[in-house]
Amino acid sequence: MDEFQFIKSIKQKTYHQHSLIKGIGDDAAVFRDTTHDIVTAVDTFVDKIHFSKQTTQPFHIGYRALAANISDMAAMGAIPKFYLVSIVIPKNVGEKSLQSIFTGMRKIASLYKMDLIGGDTVSGSVLTISITIIGYVPKGKARYRSDAKDKDVVFVTGTLGDSRAGLHILMNNIDASFTHYFIKKHQMPTPRVTFAESLRPLKRVSLNDVSDGIANELKEIAEASKVTIMIKDQEIPVSEHFSQFSRTQQNEWKYFGGEDFELVGTVPKQDWPIVKENAKKLMLRISKIGYVTYNEQLNGQVYVKKNNKIKLLNTFGYIHLK
Amino acid sequence: MDEFQFIKSIKQKTYHQHSLIKGIGDDAAVFRDTTHDIVTAVDTFVDKIHFSKQTTQPFHIGYRALAANISDMAAMGAIPKFYLVSIVIPKNVGEKSLQSIFTGMRKIASLYKMDLIGGDTVSGSVLTISITIIGYVPKGKARYRSDAKDKDVVFVTGTLGDSRAGLHILMNNIDASFTHYFIKKHQMPTPRVTFAESLRPLKRVSLNDVSDGIANELKEIAEASKVTIMIKDQEIPVSEHFSQFSRTQQNEWKYFGGEDFELVGTVPKQDWPIVKENAKKLMLRISKIGYVTYNEQLNGQVYVKKNNKIKLLNTFGYIHLK
Repeated sequence: MDEFQFIKSIKQKTYHQHSLIKGIGDDAAVFRDTTHDIVTAVDTFVDKIHFSKQTTQPFHIGYRALAANISDMAAMGAIPKFYLVSIVIPKNVGEKSLQSIFTGMRKIASLYKMDLIGGDTVSGSVLTISITIIGYVPKGKARYRSDAKDKDVVFVTGTLGDSRAGLHILMNNIDASFTHYFIKKHQMPTPRVTFAESLRPLKRVSLNDVSDGIANELKEIAEASKVTIMIKDQEIPVSEHFSQFSRTQQNEWKYFGGEDFELVGTVPKQDWPIVKENAKKLMLRISKIGYVTYNEQLNGQVYVKKNNKIKLLNTFGYIHLK
Repeated sequence: MDEFQFIKSIKQKTYHQHSLIKGIGDDAAVFRDTTHDIVTAVDTFVDKIHFSKQTTQPFHIGYRALAANISDMAAMGAIPKFYLVSIVIPKNVGEKSLQSIFTGMRKIASLYKMDLIGGDTVSGSVLTISITIIGYVPKGKARYRSDAKDKDVVFVTGTLGDSRAGLHILMNNIDASFTHYFIKKHQMPTPRVTFAESLRPLKRVSLNDVSDGIANELKEIAEASKVTIMIKDQEIPVSEHFSQFSRTQQNEWKYFGGEDFELVGTVPKQDWPIVKENAKKLMLRISKIGYVTYNEQLNGQVYVKKNNKIKLLNTFGYIHLK
């Protein structure tokens, strides 16, 4: 199978998105939409750094990679529409694995009626997948991390640390309880697109997705918004099966684990009941974990209250470049 | 320098494009344009496959990679506006080289007032650059390779094979005439954006850029348009310094060399004078190299007339995946 046959095999026969004018098959894809703002991001995944054979089947490599991109759209309040995939393929990755990677992407793409509209296929020594995602958001409704303000409620969806726990189980082949639950959270995360969309009526929401661990995400909000964020350790939501891991692991994973792809953000106090109600309708757990404050000396920082002590929350998540 | 410092260092202080709402600094970039169709493509470049230390300085790696993407926009008749860069960085690539790669990209980006609006930076063992480009084209004015029709004139801009000759000189450290000319054609190609834009008044143009060699590009047009393309060998434009290379080299490079980033396409016969006139105004060489014909048995193929014999033109360009 050569490059052209491969591209032909992954090319969609039909497209879902009416705004698409030209998909795969020319020098570039073309789409038209005059009622939305266009949102775009790119995320790259490298073998042995972002995934490994031991913990991730080809299907899940594809699924998780696109999920991470979709989560970026959720964090912007946008609906994902299109994706382009650039893949570097080593000789030792067979056609079956390749097809499975794309099947994994198609699987999660289909949940959002997303279309694969372009990409590039090159040979190389390290399996590398770079995904560009394009989404739509109603004009002026993109959600930024710079929109947090004094007295806002800080919230987070779902539970944190589960993906990291799943990775731990896979890496160490551990016989844990609810193994399947944690592994699924790692391999097939659910971006919170619908929840972010449900917040549209709200005037102001600051938003990030938990890709690098909540410590990093909150710090980004605090820095971009020039505010101080205060959270309570005991309010950080974890799953009921999380207590089987050591205290150190629990603590590390919930703050720095990352890849949970939950949403963390802030809203004005008076909007918090609406946020809670929306989450409830979607049967999505949501937690108030703290509040925003304004203190010129402390702005840009995140503080955690634990056992009646307030500590600065350090950030050390996945920083790949040293 | 960590990932964040690096991103900060390459982040533009100001943006050129008024349609950009949010550049680098959130989970995704946001832009708004209601009067154009949006055109997007991605291209990936891997060390030792698409470039090497021997032939390409970091500055030129960046310049050429973005030029290739810009050329895709030209091939669509679109004006490039934004780019996102995903880069895999090995330990042995120092900060200075990295900065030079981005300086190279900025150099050519500035010619088009393009903005760097996103990307990803990860560590890995092989330097890999994946660029996503986004451009605008007036509604319905995107140019496709599927628009060639019977009796069209087939044209190509510039001269072919020069980039491949430049690579040859660099790889073999050859003492050729006009070395600088060929090397520059290889390292700093000029995409034909303005020329493609000048064709806007024309109703129908089929267009491809010469990234993989004209044999491949013509075949793509013939296949997509379901027509037969007949070209004359002696009409293929080559530079006046090309004759110093062997006949085999000349023949191979002009058909299969690729990376000249010229434009090849077809227009109705009556529009050919306009195309010529536009090229003249831009001081761009343009050549009529053949015509389109319709023959059910031969459609999808390209034929070359050479020494009064007509031969099927085979395609073997850069097919990276085997």
